Amino acid sequence: MLMSPEIRRALELALEAGESVRGTTSPNPPVGCAIVDSDGDIVGVGATQSPSGSGEHAEVMALRAAGDRARGASAVVTLEPCNHTGRTGPCTHALVDAGITAVYYATRDPNPLAAGGAEYLREHGVSATYLGLDVPALQFWLTGVRLGRPHVTVKMASTLDGFSAAEDGTSQWITGEKARQHAHRDRACRDAIVVGTGTVMADNPKLTARNPDGSLYPHQPQPVVIGRRPIPQGSHLDRDDVLRFESIDAALADLWERGLRDVLVEGGPRLVGSFLSAGLVDTIHSYLSPSILGGGLPAVNLGLERPTTLTDIRRFQIQHILRLGEDILIQSTVRATQKESGT
Amino acid sequence: MLMSPEIRRALELALEAGESVRGTTSPNPPVGCAIVDSDGDIVGVGATQSPSGSGEHAEVMALRAAGDRARGASAVVTLEPCNHTGRTGPCTHALVDAGITAVYYATRDPNPLAAGGAEYLREHGVSATYLGLDVPALQFWLTGVRLGRPHVTVKMASTLDGFSAAEDGTSQWITGEKARQHAHRDRACRDAIVVGTGTVMADNPKLTARNPDGSLYPHQPQPVVIGRRPIPQGSHLDRDDVLRFESIDAALADLWERGLRDVLVEGGPRLVGSFLSAGLVDTIHSYLSPSILGGGLPAVNLGLERPTTLTDIRRFQIQHILRLGEDILIQSTVRATQKESGT
Ligand SMILES: NC(=O)c1ccc[n+]([C@@H]2O[C@H](COP(=O)([O-])OP(=O)(O)OC[C@H]3O[C@@H](n4cnc5c(N)ncnc54)[C@H](OP(=O)(O)O)[C@@H]3O)[C@@H](O)[C@H]2O)c1
Ligand SMILES: NC(=O)c1ccc[n+]([C@@H]2O[C@H](COP(=O)([O-])OP(=O)(O)OC[C@H]3O[C@@H](n4cnc5c(N)ncnc54)[C@H](OP(=O)(O)O)[C@@H]3O)[C@@H](O)[C@H]2O)c1
Repeated sequence: MLMSPEIRRALELALEAGESVRGTTSPNPPVGCAIVDSDGDIVGVGATQSPSGSGEHAEVMALRAAGDRARGASAVVTLEPCNHTGRTGPCTHALVDAGITAVYYATRDPNPLAAGGAEYLREHGVSATYLGLDVPALQFWLTGVRLGRPHVTVKMASTLDGFSAAEDGTSQWITGEKARQHAHRDRACRDAIVVGTGTVMADNPKLTARNPDGSLYPHQPQPVVIGRRPIPQGSHLDRDDVLRFESIDAALADLWERGLRDVLVEGGPRLVGSFLSAGLVDTIHSYLSPSILGGGLPAVNLGLERPTTLTDIRRFQIQHILRLGEDILIQSTVRATQKESGT
Repeated sequence: MLMSPEIRRALELALEAGESVRGTTSPNPPVGCAIVDSDGDIVGVGATQSPSGSGEHAEVMALRAAGDRARGASAVVTLEPCNHTGRTGPCTHALVDAGITAVYYATRDPNPLAAGGAEYLREHGVSATYLGLDVPALQFWLTGVRLGRPHVTVKMASTLDGFSAAEDGTSQWITGEKARQHAHRDRACRDAIVVGTGTVMADNPKLTARNPDGSLYPHQPQPVVIGRRPIPQGSHLDRDDVLRFESIDAALADLWERGLRDVLVEGGPRLVGSFLSAGLVDTIHSYLSPSILGGGLPAVNLGLERPTTLTDIRRFQIQHILRLGEDILIQSTVRATQKESGT
């Protein structure tokens, strides 16, 4: 898809705007929108508002910022504009009413209730162009619509030879400062962080998203603990707002009901193994330190489900590789065939 | 260091020329040289010749290609020109005699016997500029000069969770076609490939450098097996030209004596562990497949030398990350402090 420089610039701003509200919009998708007039000037940018606030959609926010300058302008949106009256009116109507003449959208809305936006626009004389792009900020929301459960990202931090702690349990620090900062920023845009009871007892984690100076990010994920053993009294997660579950299925069903869509599993090895065995891992974030331990706690423990031969390997697909100081982050997603068959 | 576009272009050609003869020049370094005249035209490119052939140095080859056009031209070399009469005469003299007026060299010659090239050039009215660049093709040769032993690269191929074979020993194929092709190209520019007896018995490897169609690359590395157990009769390495050693020290000393400088250790886990324990790993090439096994044969087995706490971690430094089809290759080098202390 060839785009003019103006549309490309607007798309970048729309993607940034969507990314900036990740973690604050569930159950709605974090969408971004930018409006560009016929001179190529950006006249408005907007993003989905939190449901605990106005809940307004990105298009409406961008149109409001543009005011009269929206007339005759083009709108670039990361998701097909909704054609559906929910808590807010359909965005398609707002775009037509504001005098927008062309809409470019990066992804289609797979939600049958909200879809049909492009059709409505064309029927009302607005050109509607599907760009067919991957929007990272929308990935988890799309998984939700498709599978009816939250998107699951598993985080692992390990050495080149696959260990995430030494034999005596020490794991501070395998990765460096930059990688840990990235992991905290990542927490700050998740709906929930999940760990097993083993990790709670070994590490006494806070599961908060913190800046390097220890201060909290504005958005904090919901802490979740899976397992039967009690949380030790007086530990950081011995708090009323921590959700407890005795199975993964119960956890995902409840989080879904609460409108939480983007879940980060931070370990330990046995809980990660359980998610993998159940075919419930959509994305792996593997923080790798260029170091060798030669023994210790494996990053993943599949227990009796571990394969004995190579054909049972679980394959993912690399999406991005990031250098984080001395370490790297490999982001991979499950292969479609595997995901569909649930293994 | 700011370089003119002409010098930069010549440097690229010199680096390429040096890279192209890797594996064929030991014990000499694989150097490249390009000569650029005052119009900015490249008038000659050359690389170190095999000692089994003429053994001529890169500068002499490039000067020969340039002929009369070398007069008044500049020479760009990946290593400081030698000032020493060995099997061939000093390159510094050849450059001066040919009328070269400026020499740019990427790395210094740490060899006291051959050094002093820049000084000689300046005394004879030729400007000599040190560029201070890392030249990957010279890395192993520089290690040799510094430590008096061959440079050791360890190759590992593993899953994200650090396994290089399943429990039943199957390891074909963890990484994909592109990664395997890269590993064969890499073999084709090494002086020797080393494996342990365990790998010989489990995999019956050929240790040849092969094209995808099975044909052999022109340069083949010396096969080396370490361990006491005999090579099974009739296996691929049951050949007279395979070198056998009962210890790593004996192997490195003998390979050094033979003039072999660039050694690739391809496993298995116990031999790699022994090299690591002995502080004899300069570079790690980690081929990673974005997949999870959850159990199996670890990429590294340190045996009783494995650390029990995190402070014993062996840290490396990432130099390059390459995408190879679905897989990635992480190249890291040992940290200077570690290398010097030998741990
Ligand atoms: N470096 C890192 O990135 C990192 C991150 C996290 C943890 N760690 C390390 O991991 C170690 C702890 O390992 P671990 O494997 O014991 O921790 P874990 O996975 O956090 O906890 C295991 C527990 O989780 C529960 N669980 C797992 N799968 C389940 C399932 N399918 N259904 C219900 N409950 C399930 C069980 O709890 P119950 O037995 O209570 O029922 C199980 O005992 C610690 O040493 C910690 O430092 C390292
Ligand atoms: N995926 C991969 O990249 C890859 C690569 C290679 C191998 N592998 C797998 O690795 C497995 C074999 O594992 P392994 O650890 O047994 O193989 P190995 O490391 O090749 O062989 C171990 C043997 O090497 C010798 N050795 C090791 N350190 C030594 C030292 N410091 N001094 C003298 N000799 C030393 C010993 O031989 P003696 O006992 O004979 O004295 C030892 O038993 C196979 O399943 C193979 O498929 C996988």
